[in-house]
Amino acid sequence: MQYVRCIKCDNRAIYYRAYSGEKLCNSCFCSSIIEKVKRTIAKYDLLKYGDAIGVAVSGGKDSLTLLRILNELSKPHASKIFAITIDEGIYGYREEAIDICKNFTEELNIPHHIFSFEELFGFSLDDVIKIRKSKFSACSVCGILRRRALDIAAKELKVDAIATAHNLDDFLQTFMINLLNGDIDRIKWLNPLIKPRSEFVVRRVKPLMEIYEKEIALYAFLKNTQFQTVTCPYMNESIRSEIRLMMNSLEDEHPGIKYSALNSAIKLSQSLMTDERELKACKTCNFPSSSDFCSVCKILEMVKRNMYI
Amino acid sequence: MQYVRCIKCDNRAIYYRAYSGEKLCNSCFCSSIIEKVKRTIAKYDLLKYGDAIGVAVSGGKDSLTLLRILNELSKPHASKIFAITIDEGIYGYREEAIDICKNFTEELNIPHHIFSFEELFGFSLDDVIKIRKSKFSACSVCGILRRRALDIAAKELKVDAIATAHNLDDFLQTFMINLLNGDIDRIKWLNPLIKPRSEFVVRRVKPLMEIYEKEIALYAFLKNTQFQTVTCPYMNESIRSEIRLMMNSLEDEHPGIKYSALNSAIKLSQSLMTDERELKACKTCNFPSSSDFCSVCKILEMVKRNMYI
Repeated sequence: MQYVRCIKCDNRAIYYRAYSGEKLCNSCFCSSIIEKVKRTIAKYDLLKYGDAIGVAVSGGKDSLTLLRILNELSKPHASKIFAITIDEGIYGYREEAIDICKNFTEELNIPHHIFSFEELFGFSLDDVIKIRKSKFSACSVCGILRRRALDIAAKELKVDAIATAHNLDDFLQTFMINLLNGDIDRIKWLNPLIKPRSEFVVRRVKPLMEIYEKEIALYAFLKNTQFQTVTCPYMNESIRSEIRLMMNSLEDEHPGIKYSALNSAIKLSQSLMTDERELKACKTCNFPSSSDFCSVCKILEMVKRNMYI
Repeated sequence: MQYVRCIKCDNRAIYYRAYSGEKLCNSCFCSSIIEKVKRTIAKYDLLKYGDAIGVAVSGGKDSLTLLRILNELSKPHASKIFAITIDEGIYGYREEAIDICKNFTEELNIPHHIFSFEELFGFSLDDVIKIRKSKFSACSVCGILRRRALDIAAKELKVDAIATAHNLDDFLQTFMINLLNGDIDRIKWLNPLIKPRSEFVVRRVKPLMEIYEKEIALYAFLKNTQFQTVTCPYMNESIRSEIRLMMNSLEDEHPGIKYSALNSAIKLSQSLMTDERELKACKTCNFPSSSDFCSVCKILEMVKRNMYI
């Protein structure tokens, strides 16, 4: 029987990469993903020989794939890998994710550490959502606390960098949201070469930032990765979904446009001057803050007032 | 009979400006457009007292509206206004536009000058399209020659600036196209404060760059402006149409998002360093060029080879 052949090895092709015109077999496709991640790491000097790396693992396809790839890449580089899962306390959602992460890290023999909002802050995300003021969306509260939780975890585990699984689509969506909101400051923080703002904050790296989301999904499928498919019950980022659809439709018409848009986004993020003013420290927790009190402490204060007073 | 009242003067409102929540009557809406144009001119120092201004007028709603507004604004500022129409030589399309421009400028008593490709370059756009190589799209050939024609017209009429009718939507679309194409250099040229690159090139200003296209259309309608409604037969900018639809759909969901996106686009254009390398001059015509021969001379050479050899 006739079949389409891989452009590299002549085996049966299973994937057509529209932006490059390549037809690839299972093995050559997976190798190409590994090579791309290696190139991204080298290009932006994301990780160094011997680094201890904390990989933020939620149980979704992207973070499990990141963990699998970094684990494979770490062996010849003597890097130490830790999987970190943040348990925000989302009833009926996070429990399944934690089981998936546990099974996956056991299978790969990677140490797995769980840090919960409950333990770190004294309450779950479910608790905050019940009492939150309109000022904070569920995603913004969760994002602020999750970033802090990762910094605490990183310090405790003494890792040199935290790797998150943001892919090319995530990166572009975030860039576009900030652009459309007129939020130039946040575009600056997308610069992959940017340094942490204080000793309290651990360097963040995004080794999947040059990989299309759909190629990560295919990689996860080909590696038979069991990941969580339900989405967070609090997820309600309408503009992100709108931009996702728009970018996908542009990519269908103009294959490769996401790559050139990513290049623009990175160059623009790098063109913005970093703020040289001395960074403030939060008066409560000493973490970097743009005002007297950081967002985390503001949320903690809000919760305290509503819960106990 | 009950009707919705203008937020400013209590007359009957005819327009709801979603991004500001204002309901406006005919007169207050038109005043608000004039005020916005004045603010844009002041903010970016686009025009000065006594400037001679060449207004590029195609016969469409935007350029006739620009001419009407600049004519009104010029009186107290002793500015001299010239209407300039470029006749590219597009059979069955440009003739109607020229008649419209003639009637409009007569009505407003503004001197009107027509410069044709035929006269300036020795051939019409129709001629080039017949023989063009795939390297140039109709719009890119036309754009390159039209910019040059405007520079020649400006020098001949001794104007200090050429005003074009690009509106907020045009500006954003151009920004997005360049962004998606990874063409950072062109984003730099969107900076409204940028200076001309050589004495051969006349300063370009876009006084309508902060006005929504639909508000210009309404203004033109309320002023009973007769404009050309058919589109150019060569127009085929698929990605521009896609982006127009996307931005309109985002604006419907998030009123005002085009404004905040415009602010980002301007700030980003200004964050990019201008190229300080000495600018080359075209070896044939002396106009600024990034290589030995400028795009205009390349097109002229292509036409010469195909037409006479």
